[in-house]
Amino acid sequence: MTIPTAILGPTGYTGLELLEILLRHPTLRPAFLGSARAELPKIDEEFPRLAGRLSAIGAPTACEPINHDVIAQRCKLAFLCLPHEAAMTHTPALLSRGVKVVDLSAAYRLRDTAVYQQHYGHAHHDATNLEHAVYGLTEFARDQVRSATLVANPGCYPTAAAIALIPLLRAGLIDPASIIISAASGVSGAGREAKPNLHFPEANENFSVYGIGTHRHQPEIQQSLSKWGTRPRSSGGGGGSFGASTTEGAEGVLFVAHLLPVIRGILETIYATPIKPGLTTAEVQAALRAAYENQRFIAVRDAAPTLRDVQHTNMVHVNARVVNKRVVLVAAIDNLIKGASGQAVQNANLMLGLDESAGLS
Amino acid sequence: MTIPTAILGPTGYTGLELLEILLRHPTLRPAFLGSARAELPKIDEEFPRLAGRLSAIGAPTACEPINHDVIAQRCKLAFLCLPHEAAMTHTPALLSRGVKVVDLSAAYRLRDTAVYQQHYGHAHHDATNLEHAVYGLTEFARDQVRSATLVANPGCYPTAAAIALIPLLRAGLIDPASIIISAASGVSGAGREAKPNLHFPEANENFSVYGIGTHRHQPEIQQSLSKWGTRPRSSGGGGGSFGASTTEGAEGVLFVAHLLPVIRGILETIYATPIKPGLTTAEVQAALRAAYENQRFIAVRDAAPTLRDVQHTNMVHVNARVVNKRVVLVAAIDNLIKGASGQAVQNANLMLGLDESAGLS
Amino acid sequence: MTIPTAILGPTGYTGLELLEILLRHPTLRPAFLGSARAELPKIDEEFPRLAGRLSAIGAPTACEPINHDVIAQRCKLAFLCLPHEAAMTHTPALLSRGVKVVDLSAAYRLRDTAVYQQHYGHAHHDATNLEHAVYGLTEFARDQVRSATLVANPGCYPTAAAIALIPLLRAGLIDPASIIISAASGVSGAGREAKPNLHFPEANENFSVYGIGTHRHQPEIQQSLSKWGTRPRSSGGGGGSFGASTTEGAEGVLFVAHLLPVIRGILETIYATPIKPGLTTAEVQAALRAAYENQRFIAVRDAAPTLRDVQHTNMVHVNARVVNKRVVLVAAIDNLIKGASGQAVQNANLMLGLDESAGLS
Amino acid sequence: MTIPTAILGPTGYTGLELLEILLRHPTLRPAFLGSARAELPKIDEEFPRLAGRLSAIGAPTACEPINHDVIAQRCKLAFLCLPHEAAMTHTPALLSRGVKVVDLSAAYRLRDTAVYQQHYGHAHHDATNLEHAVYGLTEFARDQVRSATLVANPGCYPTAAAIALIPLLRAGLIDPASIIISAASGVSGAGREAKPNLHFPEANENFSVYGIGTHRHQPEIQQSLSKWGTRPRSSGGGGGSFGASTTEGAEGVLFVAHLLPVIRGILETIYATPIKPGLTTAEVQAALRAAYENQRFIAVRDAAPTLRDVQHTNMVHVNARVVNKRVVLVAAIDNLIKGASGQAVQNANLMLGLDESAGLS
Repeated sequence: MTIPTAILGPTGYTGLELLEILLRHPTLRPAFLGSARAELPKIDEEFPRLAGRLSAIGAPTACEPINHDVIAQRCKLAFLCLPHEAAMTHTPALLSRGVKVVDLSAAYRLRDTAVYQQHYGHAHHDATNLEHAVYGLTEFARDQVRSATLVANPGCYPTAAAIALIPLLRAGLIDPASIIISAASGVSGAGREAKPNLHFPEANENFSVYGIGTHRHQPEIQQSLSKWGTRPRSSGGGGGSFGASTTEGAEGVLFVAHLLPVIRGILETIYATPIKPGLTTAEVQAALRAAYENQRFIAVRDAAPTLRDVQHTNMVHVNARVVNKRVVLVAAIDNLIKGASGQAVQNANLMLGLDESAGLS
Repeated sequence: MTIPTAILGPTGYTGLELLEILLRHPTLRPAFLGSARAELPKIDEEFPRLAGRLSAIGAPTACEPINHDVIAQRCKLAFLCLPHEAAMTHTPALLSRGVKVVDLSAAYRLRDTAVYQQHYGHAHHDATNLEHAVYGLTEFARDQVRSATLVANPGCYPTAAAIALIPLLRAGLIDPASIIISAASGVSGAGREAKPNLHFPEANENFSVYGIGTHRHQPEIQQSLSKWGTRPRSSGGGGGSFGASTTEGAEGVLFVAHLLPVIRGILETIYATPIKPGLTTAEVQAALRAAYENQRFIAVRDAAPTLRDVQHTNMVHVNARVVNKRVVLVAAIDNLIKGASGQAVQNANLMLGLDESAGLS
Repeated sequence: MTIPTAILGPTGYTGLELLEILLRHPTLRPAFLGSARAELPKIDEEFPRLAGRLSAIGAPTACEPINHDVIAQRCKLAFLCLPHEAAMTHTPALLSRGVKVVDLSAAYRLRDTAVYQQHYGHAHHDATNLEHAVYGLTEFARDQVRSATLVANPGCYPTAAAIALIPLLRAGLIDPASIIISAASGVSGAGREAKPNLHFPEANENFSVYGIGTHRHQPEIQQSLSKWGTRPRSSGGGGGSFGASTTEGAEGVLFVAHLLPVIRGILETIYATPIKPGLTTAEVQAALRAAYENQRFIAVRDAAPTLRDVQHTNMVHVNARVVNKRVVLVAAIDNLIKGASGQAVQNANLMLGLDESAGLS
Repeated sequence: MTIPTAILGPTGYTGLELLEILLRHPTLRPAFLGSARAELPKIDEEFPRLAGRLSAIGAPTACEPINHDVIAQRCKLAFLCLPHEAAMTHTPALLSRGVKVVDLSAAYRLRDTAVYQQHYGHAHHDATNLEHAVYGLTEFARDQVRSATLVANPGCYPTAAAIALIPLLRAGLIDPASIIISAASGVSGAGREAKPNLHFPEANENFSVYGIGTHRHQPEIQQSLSKWGTRPRSSGGGGGSFGASTTEGAEGVLFVAHLLPVIRGILETIYATPIKPGLTTAEVQAALRAAYENQRFIAVRDAAPTLRDVQHTNMVHVNARVVNKRVVLVAAIDNLIKGASGQAVQNANLMLGLDESAGLS
């Protein structure tokens, strides 16, 4: 049995990565490649590395115009790797035709449309679907994702930050207002378009900081920490019941991004102040281990992870310690996989009733 | 249904790559990890990127001493990622216990033990098994591999060179004595051991040439071209019947290796003199296409391939043209996959009666 | 007029960089290359890039055994690029023979020998010279360097951190106890010896964190901030008169190092809490500009600097801003130049009465 | 004494490199920076790495419109880092005003304007100055350069190829028609403009071949080999008198370029057939050594050079050997220095009566 899926916008890096994952997926098949370009690309000419491989699994190589009826006839679920505004146009049309949507853009991530507009520069024009969109940080939203028709796939930086911080916040170990996320990403995170600062002789052998406290992912991180990082009122919580109240201080989180001369991977070094004075490394590690004991895609490590440990996998590696009166967390993901297309497939698997880890190793 | 396999020597780069492939394989499972180290490593401590992933498929993480009886009880086939001499020790013991062997070392590649000794610095001490070992250049040895108990997995450079050159030699288009293979490999080809010239500040932003006409892979290439590159006597040949005679001139092939500041991938630019004066690009491309029409893992490209096109795949990409009175061929592979562990799995699939492409995308 | 100098330990990266600088220096000449190796190296065989270039300026290429009398006969000043303990052996012998010393090891950097022993793992055994050694952070110690016979050349990370932080501390703008230095260095900072984690296939396309709160440079940074970062008691200070008292809270500074997949360069992103609530970017930038108005090798930038901006120069680039209630400073240097051999030449120039910037562009 | 010079087109990589060299030059000073852009750039905003450094030597940072009279009033010599066609416009105007010109474009390199037009896609429109332009391969054209008013600075690939091949051709050791130049360059050789294939995620960890037999530098190489590679008729030649006849077979030279994932440097591996059967490595090396005995910027190496050996220097490193009946030459240069701005300064030094190596280490 195979399940046909659509990929809209397959010519970017998240599109390519999705195709690479689907090439190994036991069930999901790319059955529709939708492009908004006037001259419709052949995907194996765009990415010669796909030559011969798509046809070997019976997948199309020619992109087609984005026609919602055709998609609905052919596919059960669509992955949207489109610009934010295009995602808001196609999502309602697909949902209304019964096609489930995993949206890899930021269109449905932020609950507050004013914050959205401030950071993305245009109004949100699909409040209807925003309301029921599930923010797909899979490990914390598994049940909602299972029954969702629209999943807003989390941003790359926010995925790593939330996975690292939520357990310590929920355990009441760190002060949210003290959090500084010093993050670094490979260049694929900036997309496929050639830009002067991403020109090889500029980006190679270089390292730079950007978006200091102004990055679009800062409000997304704050939202996740507010939503899931609240200490449960009663200790009877367990894995499922999250507090509804806002984490006080999450708006004080500072997020700073750096550009690494590597193709893929995100490493975040996160600094926070312990709430109680004598907090130990054992305690913070224990909080992480308790939270992620049975999570297939999260490894709580004894040592700080590196990019290499997670590249080309859907894993999050995380480690915490207490040193010189600070908690220092280190989290690593592959920005294109757990930070984008891998988590998208993880979510799609759940939405379609498949094994959550299908196609993901 | 799963088939248990052993990996001997999993702590090098080919071992890691094999594990990565088996993590995605529908049938083959790592069931025995054998190490010759006194202190037996845990493979997910050697390679933290495996953390949590092996246990998720029920594979062991602890290496065990290499015990042939235990392997025979547990596994149908063993992948040997060992030093050449160790491979010659363990292979007879495994074969005699009914365990099939895919040997990734060079131990059983060269038919001529004198040439072997000259290039590898020690005598060959398993002539018995050398005799029936099948040189596993899959596309040219498929039938023999299917019934083999011992496959000598080809070297990385020789795989790309042979795939590129054999069709043109068999078609009688190029003069074997004129062949110059100017090849370049990523650093993983040199193994996992830290060496001064592979120290990051030395190897990065650098490019160098080595083994000019003296590389161990030169005789292996010459052997393949002699074996498969001969023009069939009768033109009724087709895909199966290869001439038995030696390609005259193959001993004149010059192989020159370069070290690239990349982790993985081999690109070979190959120069040869046409046999007939007016040879055209169309003719050489047609010869390649005819040879590889139905080969799942070979793409004959209209343009010269790049490393990127093949990295992390089992593909060979090849392109040929005629320019300024020379034939110029460009071939690319991933040295760790089609040049090692991927072709090893391709061969193991055949030896075990599975779909040749299982686990390989 | 030329001034002959000795380089002891020229076979490491700081030694090579020193030679590269002296090749362009109008006055200083390498006249003695001292090695402790049993087999004395030829420096242009160690570093083929020096072939023909040293002899063109009349400099030796053969290393000699380290003979203090010979050095004293031939040279006015010696650059020590030796292990810490070797530096403590040769420094007294050279000083007693009238040879000035710029020591690039850590031997004479820390005033407190107990702290030294704790971080470097061996006792300090030259307290006599430690007493008068001048810590050569040139911009803050210019006058002392001029008359020094022994300069302890600052560490790479501490140079960037001190230059960035001292003006804001002295202006009383930031809380020293809140400082977090999230720093990243190219691999040359780890030296020339091949190590597993610096093997090209491991270090390339990777990024990792190390020495979290335990790095040897943390006490060196704390010492500099204590020494120069104190707010002057009377406001009549100007550039010269530093307070003697310890900066309270400097011991709370947290230093975290990261390893970048680049050869050279250090970028430090530094986080601190403002002391007064409404602090502005204009105020912190003004404090930096006031401090470094006439410093040839410091550029206070309007934007955050990148590694590229300083590689192969002796410059420090620094930028500060206030965002989300934190001060964020970004400082960049070339670890081998301003962080080692360039600052060493800057200091040597002063010690020998030359133009401070001679040979440094 | 300083000599003021102009740089036209300083915002590209050769312009930057020229500025870096002049910052260290004892005599030449940048006194005019000319730009054709409507919005005149500040050069230290274009290249923040220049911040504070140009003003330290009294050089301008603001670009000015290209006004020939102003240049003539202010400067003795102009370096042209302009597009080819712009160079043909400004060169006559500058020469007529008494300003010497070193042109780094290809405008005046090819003697044959038909070949020029074929490869550069536009007609040559300054035949007058082409006639007396000196092709500045300094080591072979030193005397002509000294008295030249217009020097056509050689291309990067052609510089390395000519230096490597001319001595063996002149000694009659290799067959010119057999020459294959398999060359590889860092990305800076492609210029500063961001392009899709030079986007970091595309160019990094990649290696590709381009311009197979069709590269613009092929005719330039053929021209140099024809001009200087002819065997002198009488053996009384010495360094100065070159034969006038064309090297037969030079038109058969095949040049193939590769793109390396490094910023700077060119390595050329060159294959040729010996003319006499028993040619030895000793003989080919002796021919190189005889030719370059006293050349400051050429090192004939016992081993094959690497990129690292020449990066950031004006050196050419070359090595030759005979193996498997072929001569294999390896030559390395820094494409931005000996392949562009360094050789330009070397030529300018001669044109202005300075020490040839001034400013070049």
